[in-house]
Amino acid sequence: MNETVFLNGEYISKDKAYISPDDRGFYFADGVYEVMRCFKGNLFCFEEHLARLKRSLSEIKLVFKTTDKLGSICNDLIVKNNLEEKYADIYLQITRGVSRRMHSFPKENVPPTIYIVAYERLPYINELKNGIRTITRPDIRWLRCDIKTISLLPNTLMFQEAREKNASECIFIRNGVITEASHSNVMGIKDGIIFTHPDCNLILPGITKKVIFDICRESGITIRENAVREADIYELDELFITSTGDDIMPVVEVDNRPIGNGTPGPLTRKIQSVFFDMTYKELGGENKTWF
Amino acid sequence: MNETVFLNGEYISKDKAYISPDDRGFYFADGVYEVMRCFKGNLFCFEEHLARLKRSLSEIKLVFKTTDKLGSICNDLIVKNNLEEKYADIYLQITRGVSRRMHSFPKENVPPTIYIVAYERLPYINELKNGIRTITRPDIRWLRCDIKTISLLPNTLMFQEAREKNASECIFIRNGVITEASHSNVMGIKDGIIFTHPDCNLILPGITKKVIFDICRESGITIRENAVREADIYELDELFITSTGDDIMPVVEVDNRPIGNGTPGPLTRKIQSVFFDMTYKELGGENKTWF
Repeated sequence: MNETVFLNGEYISKDKAYISPDDRGFYFADGVYEVMRCFKGNLFCFEEHLARLKRSLSEIKLVFKTTDKLGSICNDLIVKNNLEEKYADIYLQITRGVSRRMHSFPKENVPPTIYIVAYERLPYINELKNGIRTITRPDIRWLRCDIKTISLLPNTLMFQEAREKNASECIFIRNGVITEASHSNVMGIKDGIIFTHPDCNLILPGITKKVIFDICRESGITIRENAVREADIYELDELFITSTGDDIMPVVEVDNRPIGNGTPGPLTRKIQSVFFDMTYKELGGENKTWF
Repeated sequence: MNETVFLNGEYISKDKAYISPDDRGFYFADGVYEVMRCFKGNLFCFEEHLARLKRSLSEIKLVFKTTDKLGSICNDLIVKNNLEEKYADIYLQITRGVSRRMHSFPKENVPPTIYIVAYERLPYINELKNGIRTITRPDIRWLRCDIKTISLLPNTLMFQEAREKNASECIFIRNGVITEASHSNVMGIKDGIIFTHPDCNLILPGITKKVIFDICRESGITIRENAVREADIYELDELFITSTGDDIMPVVEVDNRPIGNGTPGPLTRKIQSVFFDMTYKELGGENKTWF
């Protein structure tokens, strides 16, 4: 079945959805986006995603007046695509609209382009169970990685390098420390304490990361917002990445060397377990035994 | 009249040209581009633009097999749009094609998207005559500015800041020196010598800049590929920016302070004069007196 998507005020079949080549998203990567999860009809952390979206829009000075309608549009797409009983991703992108190519912003009466699509996506069960391999690369991105823009070429290039090395994520190193990964935050564990890069201009303030902060607070697990030094990676007991797409994903290998004993560690498993109870409860079965 | 553009193998009316929202140019800024000039039917420095395009494609690992056909397509567009006797811009963009959104590259059989448009554009006579005002901003872009990618959000944001300050370009400062500007290279003049940032990962290797190197070699003007220090900007005798769009554009003000005596200087005028003889000869009139 062809998906129903939302484009500039209309619900249309995806194969009828077209963008002008004059769209500033196509010419300049002049836009922002969010990816959200919808668990059996329930939008997860929608308010947090909306707040981050509003901040992204504000930081690139993109005026989009109807953010208050986005929640109902997302819910409509879930219904229209028969996703109420499924695990779904919702992708939402807003660009600075269609205008003859010039670097400066178009006139104020040019409406932004808004595109939203929803589709079924199961969690990456095998990877969540067994952990993933990763590579490291220098973080060569711009200095406003806190804005969730579609200017993602470096991320895709580095992720592709990971894929070509049979790995599932690329971890970025800047100034001798782990900033984040190509589309996830990174958390290292040593002696029962979680370490992660503080929110700043160099990383995206992750929504799932915030959920983990809550989980840890309630579970008595200490998190320190100190970045993991590159030199200390192999001293870590455990390592995981976290994002809307990857949930809480154990990292068992970095650049072909194991982390800890090379399998997902107990603290990662504990956080996974609490998180999955919030999100994929039904998948865990009666005993909530995930792995 | 509606323009005829080239999109994925077809010459079509621009109002019939549409891109899929699944285009990786729209999702990820996963593409490269060139802007060329065509002076009364003559493509200017086409081989140089083609060589840079090929390098850009190669650096982002985008396989585009028919670069040898681009010259004739550009010429076709000039004819189809009745631009043979005009001064025209040709904009050419190639992205990694249409594929369901994921960071890794699509399968090999996904064809790239190729879009080319040609339209009349006169040189910016008033600005070329009187010079422009500029601002400076920290260069927060990624560390592969040598690749001409469509990942241009920082450039557009900084150019917009310039526009809002009634300036015409934004000069970037990194590590205490001028790298380049939002869409041009920058050249400073002191005691008859031209200074400019050396080609490296921090700046785009400009085609017009190369032409200036040739002009200077033939005219006995010394160019040193040493970047202008931010601290030395107001010690310069002259300053200009250069790009395919801006030609050789005098800068008479930086952050509200004059350069030299606040008018275009003699060496800038000399280089302009030689360059205009190569490009806009007819506009100079019988006496080739530009200003």
